[in-house]
Amino acid sequence: MKEVVAGIDIGGTNTVFGLVDRNGKIIAEDKLLTTSYPDIEEYVSVVVDAVKRSCSRVNNIKLTGIGIGAPDANYYKGTIELAANLVWKGIIPLSSLISNKINLPVAITNDANAAALGEMIFGAAKNVKDFIILTLGTGLGSGMVINGELVYGYTGFAGELGHTIVVPGGRDCGCGRQGCLETYASASGLVRTVLYMLSEMKEVSSLREIAPSELNAKQIAEAAKKGDIIAIEAFDYTAEMLAFGIINAIVFSSPEAVYLFGGLANAGDLLFDPVRKYVDQNVMALFRGTVKILPSGIPENNAAVLGAAALAWKELSK
Amino acid sequence: MKEVVAGIDIGGTNTVFGLVDRNGKIIAEDKLLTTSYPDIEEYVSVVVDAVKRSCSRVNNIKLTGIGIGAPDANYYKGTIELAANLVWKGIIPLSSLISNKINLPVAITNDANAAALGEMIFGAAKNVKDFIILTLGTGLGSGMVINGELVYGYTGFAGELGHTIVVPGGRDCGCGRQGCLETYASASGLVRTVLYMLSEMKEVSSLREIAPSELNAKQIAEAAKKGDIIAIEAFDYTAEMLAFGIINAIVFSSPEAVYLFGGLANAGDLLFDPVRKYVDQNVMALFRGTVKILPSGIPENNAAVLGAAALAWKELSK
Repeated sequence: MKEVVAGIDIGGTNTVFGLVDRNGKIIAEDKLLTTSYPDIEEYVSVVVDAVKRSCSRVNNIKLTGIGIGAPDANYYKGTIELAANLVWKGIIPLSSLISNKINLPVAITNDANAAALGEMIFGAAKNVKDFIILTLGTGLGSGMVINGELVYGYTGFAGELGHTIVVPGGRDCGCGRQGCLETYASASGLVRTVLYMLSEMKEVSSLREIAPSELNAKQIAEAAKKGDIIAIEAFDYTAEMLAFGIINAIVFSSPEAVYLFGGLANAGDLLFDPVRKYVDQNVMALFRGTVKILPSGIPENNAAVLGAAALAWKELSK
Repeated sequence: MKEVVAGIDIGGTNTVFGLVDRNGKIIAEDKLLTTSYPDIEEYVSVVVDAVKRSCSRVNNIKLTGIGIGAPDANYYKGTIELAANLVWKGIIPLSSLISNKINLPVAITNDANAAALGEMIFGAAKNVKDFIILTLGTGLGSGMVINGELVYGYTGFAGELGHTIVVPGGRDCGCGRQGCLETYASASGLVRTVLYMLSEMKEVSSLREIAPSELNAKQIAEAAKKGDIIAIEAFDYTAEMLAFGIINAIVFSSPEAVYLFGGLANAGDLLFDPVRKYVDQNVMALFRGTVKILPSGIPENNAAVLGAAALAWKELSK
């Protein structure tokens, strides 16, 4: 019998899950529409049934635990709390709801923490004890590992580096404050920077042809690769702001590596080259050359499931 | 036989040490002039002899380990590295030099980390697993405890919160960069703020009678208590900057408490009241009300020795 865990990634629209072995191999995968189940009890039944069905289709496996990645999840309490992007309101004790149905250990954490665990157990950080992962999508999520352990903090919500204020009185942030790192250093931050540069600069740019609501990081990366000045400047500024967030994180925890993951990180050298340059220029001398800025080692389309599965394996190893 | 450790605090001018029991009671104390021993071998001999002499004067004790707090100390390597304020240049393997002479376990860390351990083992943080201590003297030192463990990071130099950049292009910092937190939120930062306000504002102030090189935090606190507008404004701005550093640290590690220690913290309510107000106003909503801002529980004149002793006890308990 091969032991597997189920890694479940709960998104606003879809719930994706996979059966994952100790080496990070995904043995089976399935998904369902989160939005179809506004009743949490029904959702739990449907997910548990789906996981069991997947297990029954594979020979010689034994399900030993479940890990869940979800927005606004609290690891300590096993809850999802006040999630703005999910159909369930209030405080949902998801771990106990699922564990009561399937009688297995269940752990839950937020998406970025799951990404950190995925990186640590299956990805590029296998032998790295002190690192930070930044997930650069619509927002900037982060997970921090110190001395081989994910940092949860007193509340369970540690690792909100996207909400470090980098420009007091700066851009409006979804958190209700202004100038947070994620309003600059994220895929949506890059779009905002392009809009600002279009307002300030006179250069011809293909980005002037795209409605702001349609504009995305991929288009900006493509324009930059074709020599679009606005796009290149926007990437440079985004990298400078990201590097600023990184150098302030470095004086805190002195990581060996910072991994970049997600939509914006897919721009490759366009992002990594200037980020490395600005970190090197501006980091405190004591830490210069001590921190590697690296791409994640987890394929993006599997990351959420592998992160959730890594959480399950980590819990089982305790 | 009562077990004790020696806590040694190495300063630029003085070296102070004490024999400390498990409860943080200082059984004997002595000091010597650091500057008298530019030869490190001689210094080590003198310190070890002095510790032995102190032990021989007390009945029924057994010395079991040594902890050292020193500037620019590296816990992992047991070294003092390139310390600007000490007589010894280069990289000094102090732990092994002392341990070879006395045949006991020796550990070393920097002053602020020692303060964190002192707080955790003997002070106000005895039952607190996630906290930050900020030592507000000439600079701003910090020690972070996460999940009951001091954070050293990959390099051993983690916890340099004083060198978080809070004002890009701001005040010149001793680290060679600009706008670091400690140039605003420290005793010397407060003095700089007074000088700036004296330049900007027309108010009558007793602080105009003091030469800048003579001006210190205590005088400014006294002036503020007497209603001096410049002094009050300077404290308020210092508190706002300190709170800014704290709210950005909170999103990182979500501590249960932040302890303030050192010269500036002695100003009491004058500092704590506005710091708490600004933290509460500006912290990310997710963390509002979760973090206590508290004075250190260790008497200032014993803090360095108790911190170093706490390191020794912590190592012995491993």
